[in-house]
Amino acid sequence: MLRMLEVVGTSPEGFSEAVRSAVEEIVRSGHAAHFFQVVEQRGSVREGRIREFQVVLKVAVESNDMPV
Amino acid sequence: MLRMLEVVGTSPEGFSEAVRSAVEEIVRSGHAAHFFQVVEQRGSVREGRIREFQVVLKVAVESNDMPV
Amino acid sequence: MLRMLEVVGTSPEGFSEAVRSAVEEIVRSGHAAHFFQVVEQRGSVREGRIREFQVVLKVAVESNDMPV
Amino acid sequence: MLRMLEVVGTSPEGFSEAVRSAVEEIVRSGHAAHFFQVVEQRGSVREGRIREFQVVLKVAVESNDMPV
Amino acid sequence: MLRMLEVVGTSPEGFSEAVRSAVEEIVRSGHAAHFFQVVEQRGSVREGRIREFQVVLKVAVESNDMPV
Amino acid sequence: MLRMLEVVGTSPEGFSEAVRSAVEEIVRSGHAAHFFQVVEQRGSVREGRIREFQVVLKVAVESNDMPV
Amino acid sequence: MLRMLEVVGTSPEGFSEAVRSAVEEIVRSGHAAHFFQVVEQRGSVREGRIREFQVVLKVAVESNDMPV
Amino acid sequence: MLRMLEVVGTSPEGFSEAVRSAVEEIVRSGHAAHFFQVVEQRGSVREGRIREFQVVLKVAVESNDMPV
Amino acid sequence: MLRMLEVVGTSPEGFSEAVRSAVEEIVRSGHAAHFFQVVEQRGSVREGRIREFQVVLKVAVESNDMPV
Amino acid sequence: MLRMLEVVGTSPEGFSEAVRSAVEEIVRSGHAAHFFQVVEQRGSVREGRIREFQVVLKVAVESNDMPV
Amino acid sequence: MLRMLEVVGTSPEGFSEAVRSAVEEIVRSGHAAHFFQVVEQRGSVREGRIREFQVVLKVAVESNDMPV
Amino acid sequence: MLRMLEVVGTSPEGFSEAVRSAVEEIVRSGHAAHFFQVVEQRGSVREGRIREFQVVLKVAVESNDMPV
Repeated sequence: MLRMLEVVGTSPEGFSEAVRSAVEEIVRSGHAAHFFQVVEQRGSVREGRIREFQVVLKVAVESNDMPV
Repeated sequence: MLRMLEVVGTSPEGFSEAVRSAVEEIVRSGHAAHFFQVVEQRGSVREGRIREFQVVLKVAVESNDMPV
Repeated sequence: MLRMLEVVGTSPEGFSEAVRSAVEEIVRSGHAAHFFQVVEQRGSVREGRIREFQVVLKVAVESNDMPV
Repeated sequence: MLRMLEVVGTSPEGFSEAVRSAVEEIVRSGHAAHFFQVVEQRGSVREGRIREFQVVLKVAVESNDMPV
Repeated sequence: MLRMLEVVGTSPEGFSEAVRSAVEEIVRSGHAAHFFQVVEQRGSVREGRIREFQVVLKVAVESNDMPV
Repeated sequence: MLRMLEVVGTSPEGFSEAVRSAVEEIVRSGHAAHFFQVVEQRGSVREGRIREFQVVLKVAVESNDMPV
Repeated sequence: MLRMLEVVGTSPEGFSEAVRSAVEEIVRSGHAAHFFQVVEQRGSVREGRIREFQVVLKVAVESNDMPV
Repeated sequence: MLRMLEVVGTSPEGFSEAVRSAVEEIVRSGHAAHFFQVVEQRGSVREGRIREFQVVLKVAVESNDMPV
Repeated sequence: MLRMLEVVGTSPEGFSEAVRSAVEEIVRSGHAAHFFQVVEQRGSVREGRIREFQVVLKVAVESNDMPV
Repeated sequence: MLRMLEVVGTSPEGFSEAVRSAVEEIVRSGHAAHFFQVVEQRGSVREGRIREFQVVLKVAVESNDMPV
Repeated sequence: MLRMLEVVGTSPEGFSEAVRSAVEEIVRSGHAAHFFQVVEQRGSVREGRIREFQVVLKVAVESNDMPV
Repeated sequence: MLRMLEVVGTSPEGFSEAVRSAVEEIVRSGHAAHFFQVVEQRGSVREGRIREFQVVLKVAVESNDMPV
């Protein structure tokens, strides 16, 4: 059984980089990730410039390596 | 990276109180919460009266204080 | 089998009160209500003030007490 | 013809109060408002407490009092 | 407060069996489950036959038996 | 003109059986049913097992055999 | 309290005529209708021509003239 | 850059005429319109007849002729 | 088995005519069409007038008369 | 590149069988199918019994074996 | 109170660049922007190449610097 | 009449590149493409890294160059 984790990835570069950042952090914390789905794309603006792109995404990980 | 936790908050008073109840319980369990989003609003009825308002909501918490 | 009745509840106070008002009216008309779901939240404005909050909601009632 | 303005209302009290706050500010700025629709319900949390409830809503106003 | 866990259940038999499989695995891992909601229904095909039906579902479990 | 009745069908077996159960009950109550649409798929769990699959569905029936 | 009736209106002419047909039939059956919302627009084709436009719509009627 | 204006067009005739009415009013107020999208289709009923068809639509206009 | 073809129908007259135009073109190309569903309603504006109404629709055709 | 074909599968047995039927027919017509997604679940009723379950689904097939 | 402006950003480079372009143009026109949300992602093709990526987005700006 | 083809574009680089890849392949196969719409954004992960970004998109092509 796979578990879907919902997280918010961010990047000053763009949406694809925000996704990459979130997936890599999930992997670094020890999860075996299989696939992801974008849920929402947002971003924040500060002093007239985009501070960060934000992507809410669901990442499917193996559930046997964590409490369900 | 933020993690989105999906929970069901309840209250006999109303939807806003149901949200408040859920956010406070998440905070009491040690999470640093940043924001929330309402997903669904429901409720149960018993003996002709609303027993509780139920709000399904996603709460964004810092992920470094928990297994992702 | 439960039947879902879709109704519009209103209140000058707020959304939760509009829901309560609709559920109570359904119960007064003789239905055994079990649960409800919010479909849409709207409202009307007159002379610069909110005249009423309006909630479209579905209420699950027992179907044996009415023509389906 | 009515124009739909999309705004974010906020309140420390709850969702209904956030809506009321936004509608009143639109009226104070000189618009004739007719009705509103809730688009999204969110909120922010600071130091373990809900700082504000946020409601994204569309408010229908008469368009002859503004550039469309 | 209930917690909504999102998981992917699979079965070579059909969608209902995929749901049953996921719910049983969540229960075996020690959770007290109350209800579930189907989010998405998919499946994979290999060598011209359906290899597995996949159901993404949210399962409501009691949150006091786990870190929120 | 057809009327859409929204009901909740249940079955311990699966989603298709829950639909069949609801359609048959509507027919037994005297309606001429033409078609149906699934709105939502849920279920309840008791003591670690699925107690029932629940399908919210809309059933199109002829309206001349009932008050609209 | 208003009740939302969901019906299917049809017309060989077009979508607006299908709506008009359904609203008029609801009124002829004795209901006091206030407003309507389009849910879905479909149609059937026979022998290479559109046989009818079909509109699923919800019509708000006063509930005191019928069992809720 | 194009700006999306959301408006409500109305007509006693039908949905297409309601759209045409709104687009023409936007153009008369001096905007250069490029395209439109239907958001919602509704209507009001008075004394048993459709008083007006209402279409909520977004119209894309050039933003250099107005404060963004 | 039926196949769903997604096409864009257009007409200077209105949405219903745009649908009719698309269905007739599909039939002329040799398909046996059964029913259709509206997916999206849009349109283009040129020199202050609606140039065409555009309807994205799915048309169900028999699949044995074409490569699936 | 994969192509998504949208089809309607049917079965007198249930939703899972309707999916299986559609996937097998696509494969028999020579396509290499990879995965599928359920879009909509419906059905028809005749003489008080479900005549068929209908599932609208998208099936991903390799595009090099057909005109895109 | 924040106001949500809906605009269409474009770029020959990609979606993130289209967003950046729209946000910068809104800021140049004098608005204090806070955050944005992606509504829709589209694009146009000319002579076999992508001419531009188009992103419909909502940008939250302070409303005190403009007529609401 | 335009036909909407739904395809899955992929790229190890990002979402915009995945779209570009799909549009170019459709053009290479001889279609005259006009515009595209993003339907869904997903991706696969292998050995802790994003293997590919996947975009499900609809591409509008002229239908006279193919069986509808």
